Amino acid sequence: MSAVTRSFASDNTAPVAPEILDAIRHANEGDAVGYGRDAWTASAVRRFREHFGEATDVYFTFNGTGANVVALSCLVHPWEAVLCPASAHLQTDECGAFERFAGSKVIPVVTGDGKLRPQDLEPHLHSGHDEHHPQPRIVSISQSTEYGGLYEPAEIRELCNYAHERGLLVHVDGARIANAAAALNATPRAITAELGVDALSFGGTKNGLMFGEAICFFTPELAAGAAPFARKQGMQLPSKMRYVAAQFEALLSNDLWLRYASHANAMTTRLHERVRAIAGIRVTRSVRCNAIFATMDHAAVARAQSEFFFYTFDDVLPEVRWMTHWATQPEDVDAFADCLEAALTSSRVEAR
Amino acid sequence: MSAVTRSFASDNTAPVAPEILDAIRHANEGDAVGYGRDAWTASAVRRFREHFGEATDVYFTFNGTGANVVALSCLVHPWEAVLCPASAHLQTDECGAFERFAGSKVIPVVTGDGKLRPQDLEPHLHSGHDEHHPQPRIVSISQSTEYGGLYEPAEIRELCNYAHERGLLVHVDGARIANAAAALNATPRAITAELGVDALSFGGTKNGLMFGEAICFFTPELAAGAAPFARKQGMQLPSKMRYVAAQFEALLSNDLWLRYASHANAMTTRLHERVRAIAGIRVTRSVRCNAIFATMDHAAVARAQSEFFFYTFDDVLPEVRWMTHWATQPEDVDAFADCLEAALTSSRVEAR
Amino acid sequence: MSAVTRSFASDNTAPVAPEILDAIRHANEGDAVGYGRDAWTASAVRRFREHFGEATDVYFTFNGTGANVVALSCLVHPWEAVLCPASAHLQTDECGAFERFAGSKVIPVVTGDGKLRPQDLEPHLHSGHDEHHPQPRIVSISQSTEYGGLYEPAEIRELCNYAHERGLLVHVDGARIANAAAALNATPRAITAELGVDALSFGGTKNGLMFGEAICFFTPELAAGAAPFARKQGMQLPSKMRYVAAQFEALLSNDLWLRYASHANAMTTRLHERVRAIAGIRVTRSVRCNAIFATMDHAAVARAQSEFFFYTFDDVLPEVRWMTHWATQPEDVDAFADCLEAALTSSRVEAR
Amino acid sequence: MSAVTRSFASDNTAPVAPEILDAIRHANEGDAVGYGRDAWTASAVRRFREHFGEATDVYFTFNGTGANVVALSCLVHPWEAVLCPASAHLQTDECGAFERFAGSKVIPVVTGDGKLRPQDLEPHLHSGHDEHHPQPRIVSISQSTEYGGLYEPAEIRELCNYAHERGLLVHVDGARIANAAAALNATPRAITAELGVDALSFGGTKNGLMFGEAICFFTPELAAGAAPFARKQGMQLPSKMRYVAAQFEALLSNDLWLRYASHANAMTTRLHERVRAIAGIRVTRSVRCNAIFATMDHAAVARAQSEFFFYTFDDVLPEVRWMTHWATQPEDVDAFADCLEAALTSSRVEAR
Repeated sequence: MSAVTRSFASDNTAPVAPEILDAIRHANEGDAVGYGRDAWTASAVRRFREHFGEATDVYFTFNGTGANVVALSCLVHPWEAVLCPASAHLQTDECGAFERFAGSKVIPVVTGDGKLRPQDLEPHLHSGHDEHHPQPRIVSISQSTEYGGLYEPAEIRELCNYAHERGLLVHVDGARIANAAAALNATPRAITAELGVDALSFGGTKNGLMFGEAICFFTPELAAGAAPFARKQGMQLPSKMRYVAAQFEALLSNDLWLRYASHANAMTTRLHERVRAIAGIRVTRSVRCNAIFATMDHAAVARAQSEFFFYTFDDVLPEVRWMTHWATQPEDVDAFADCLEAALTSSRVEAR
Repeated sequence: MSAVTRSFASDNTAPVAPEILDAIRHANEGDAVGYGRDAWTASAVRRFREHFGEATDVYFTFNGTGANVVALSCLVHPWEAVLCPASAHLQTDECGAFERFAGSKVIPVVTGDGKLRPQDLEPHLHSGHDEHHPQPRIVSISQSTEYGGLYEPAEIRELCNYAHERGLLVHVDGARIANAAAALNATPRAITAELGVDALSFGGTKNGLMFGEAICFFTPELAAGAAPFARKQGMQLPSKMRYVAAQFEALLSNDLWLRYASHANAMTTRLHERVRAIAGIRVTRSVRCNAIFATMDHAAVARAQSEFFFYTFDDVLPEVRWMTHWATQPEDVDAFADCLEAALTSSRVEAR
Repeated sequence: MSAVTRSFASDNTAPVAPEILDAIRHANEGDAVGYGRDAWTASAVRRFREHFGEATDVYFTFNGTGANVVALSCLVHPWEAVLCPASAHLQTDECGAFERFAGSKVIPVVTGDGKLRPQDLEPHLHSGHDEHHPQPRIVSISQSTEYGGLYEPAEIRELCNYAHERGLLVHVDGARIANAAAALNATPRAITAELGVDALSFGGTKNGLMFGEAICFFTPELAAGAAPFARKQGMQLPSKMRYVAAQFEALLSNDLWLRYASHANAMTTRLHERVRAIAGIRVTRSVRCNAIFATMDHAAVARAQSEFFFYTFDDVLPEVRWMTHWATQPEDVDAFADCLEAALTSSRVEAR
Repeated sequence: MSAVTRSFASDNTAPVAPEILDAIRHANEGDAVGYGRDAWTASAVRRFREHFGEATDVYFTFNGTGANVVALSCLVHPWEAVLCPASAHLQTDECGAFERFAGSKVIPVVTGDGKLRPQDLEPHLHSGHDEHHPQPRIVSISQSTEYGGLYEPAEIRELCNYAHERGLLVHVDGARIANAAAALNATPRAITAELGVDALSFGGTKNGLMFGEAICFFTPELAAGAAPFARKQGMQLPSKMRYVAAQFEALLSNDLWLRYASHANAMTTRLHERVRAIAGIRVTRSVRCNAIFATMDHAAVARAQSEFFFYTFDDVLPEVRWMTHWATQPEDVDAFADCLEAALTSSRVEAR
């Protein structure tokens, strides 16, 4: 077990990766004009265009909620609505930031596995085209999903086609797009822009950065007039932009994004192999990236949480979530699995 | 069949009731200070207090969307949410006005019959009490419901108790509260304030008025500082207020509200008796007030709509809605039933 | 003096004109589809097009704040700003409704007489075109002005040209456009659309109507996609639209708009002739339409207000406003002037 | 002249101070629970309480616009207004973020020197207490001012007393509060909380930090229920909070805040001494902290800007702004002054 505290709560409990911190240090030379009119930002944007295509427009933001809200708000009028899975971060974990900033409605679509498919959308597209009803305008999905699952590329393509045929746009909340790309053995571009996705919140904070996300518009005319203003009005324009840009420059160089994400996924795979063998743990969702959802008895949850911090997603079952990240070490995983095993053994002893 | 055009689309297709128009004419004397500082408004407010209790605070608005949005916006912070049935007018027919004005989230709760019960709310009260999640603050129900159904008084009391025990408030969208009271053989007060309801949108437009709704707060301190400003900022403060007030004064006098609503309900009962006997019509929802929901084949719907205007609620089934109002006449009902019958007969002939 | 109470507070203290009430009564026949899909609305829109040109798009609203806010909100993004005189109703009397609904900034421009000229705008167009600054997008002026003054047609044309050359639009708050047209001996069109005005809030309530204003877009493509939704989301879509439409149909027929407004103006002229001769009254602003601003001593104000209701605009001077309307009678004016004279005589007696 | 690029544009062009970067590096150990539930945040909050008093509530945000908007939005209803100098960052440089997020009105008060005094506020407090008018609720001032000036402590106390007597609160935009405290030879507390200030945006980014500001409420009950939610909904809740907290912990330790700010001020004093002696430069505003405003001819501005980046504040005069920061070196100042002198000499040569 490593000397440092390790948590299995979220990939945002991780420290900053050493290459990222180095990049920050290297950017810390002399003065730089604020708000993105600096060389680091220009370079990081070029890097994004290498990855996603020359037509990509990039806007860095402070955090993921900011990226989602600013991106979506550029693409809707206040009377237009966003359709998303009922489990979407946008719906469940952003405190209504989008509704407050955009004045628009989010329409949560209940789906069993947190993935949206055309047939899930269909019933929501008939509510009427007149002024009494918010007009569906964007479909927003998370890749990887909030439940640690994945859309296959063909699924995203099908969703994009379905949406575009109906005049809708597709946004991907890619807080964990790197984990998805790593798991699918594909580039980020191959699972977004190339499939028809219109806008992407490209995550940094959960993949080794200190802070920073990047909104990518793959059809720049969609938002070119709006995005700079929406970002500023949305309080997401960093004045010392070079420190966000330098982090992304590093992340997108030398396949760092892939290395961090692959490692995080691998640690989850290791944990999965251990916990599936532990009596009393039932893994409840398909494990594809860096999250495991599982049920175990209340007492065991409490015992394990006294040693390692993690979240209970459903108090009743209870269903818990375990996540790994770029810095999780094999010995951390083993220690955690041991802890879970011990917690469950105690439960069984008590239960006798 | 009466000489005038009659529609079964909605109770807002009705003309203004003669006593209401008379009241307007009587109010049309001389000058009156604007914005509610006139004698008609003072008198109409007194009338509301006679009906709902002395502690009632009353704010007239132009329309029902305005009443709902202003009332609810007084009771929530932008990070607090409103729970309502997924079928609520607030959710489906107000074009996101609440989200835009209040910046808050509406949480639609799917229920089979458009009625909310404590067990429907329960799963929505566990999403977390920290800042990541909109905090449930109000339960909003419609009485009568959007499907023409009714909450029994005991159901409303149970819902109010459940809500209050959890720090939530209860709002009733009473666009058709008079139809509900008439059907339940109760006073409006007995089915709202007396059961614990905190705020009511008391409907006028759908019960014989030209325009005008009344927000009633039964616990005035809840909104006293907010309501005048929210109404003005919500563009719902009529300058020539006396013309709203005079209509409500009349509606709440001589049991006019009850006479209009009872008549509307009776006409629906008459129509129900006819259509339940027509082959090819299946009444899909409990008929309690002045609305009938039914399925019939597409061709018959089209034929009937060519003679009488009414709405199709579900294009697929198709499910249609028929409504009656204070001015619907027995001969209108009969003509409409004849029309439906003929439309279905044609369908059967064609189907051979 | 007439038997009825008469006020000199505002043109919205007036009753409904008899021809308007008749029009309402005539519209009160049978059922009509709601929300403007009725024959009265179609006809009233045609009437507007006769007056303002075939390309005019018309949206009826409940009140003047609603008309201004909905009209302007269709024409700005949230990061775009409206420039208006610091005295504009939009700025001073709408409780920030525009800011709340549109999320945009109103930039008040201080001008001596409540009229905006290009040179007043000029300093506000240099604040920067980048994302740190709200981008000026619309100039909104009131005709007649909030001080009872007038823009000459050439002034409006100059303002429109100046605005259009800089990519700005021009909106006219025409709560009293009829008074202006009457005073300028011009048609409403000749002082708006023909001069380059893009959007007009055409006032009804202050010119004899019970309620109702009309947003006119003279370049329909500006707002065609937005206006129906913005009106509904702005809680300004009347369900029983026919009663608004019928009033406007009447107002725009047989020069009723002109008759009412001319009469109101004439009554102010009569009052002006009397009060300019009264010692102790100083008329402070150019009297062009149906409003007089004047100073007189505090005691006299108080005495006069005990008989006739009117507003004090500036408590310190004090500066008061007197308005007349379609129903003000010559004998009302004379009685009011007598009252003012007596109030001032008492003041002089006391002052000895 | 130092080897690195140096700008005189703004204190946000500076790099991160070495002690701050060290603090970040030290915080980069192991996992930490997100969103402020970590030991660094707890410690940094304690540090703030040492500086400002035990009753201080502290909320870290990403940037200055975020701090201002979140702080103010906790203290107003949407129908309440913020009074600030017309030159306030809130009014001129935040793209209407406050209006969009809070739905409230900002009332800009024109003052000659960017400082608000009671007599400036007084005319804005008489617009009426009824629902037609946004209700003044907060006075927001900048210390140091946007023009590089200072409020004396007695002036702030007088403003606070005046505001509190009228039911208003006082907010200080302290993006440069450290520069002000250094210049006044006082603690930050002595020029805010001790004088009656209710809320402070305590600046970090402009005083050596990478990113991060801190909202301080000195009367916690004012915002305790609102602030966590407003911050999240305002997209200002950093997930890896420890990296903001660690920076503030360092800044508030060992008088680093004072050392950086004093140095920045001293560099401006040095520049001031040079430029006041240069013919053709007229310093236009009192120089108290780390900014100089001056006029010089257009050609000289252009020449100087080709070597050093700085902003032109008024294109017409032109008036320019020069700022220094923690990293500005004496030789940078001298090189810049030389550059300005040369630019003006060329102008004079050309002018012959």
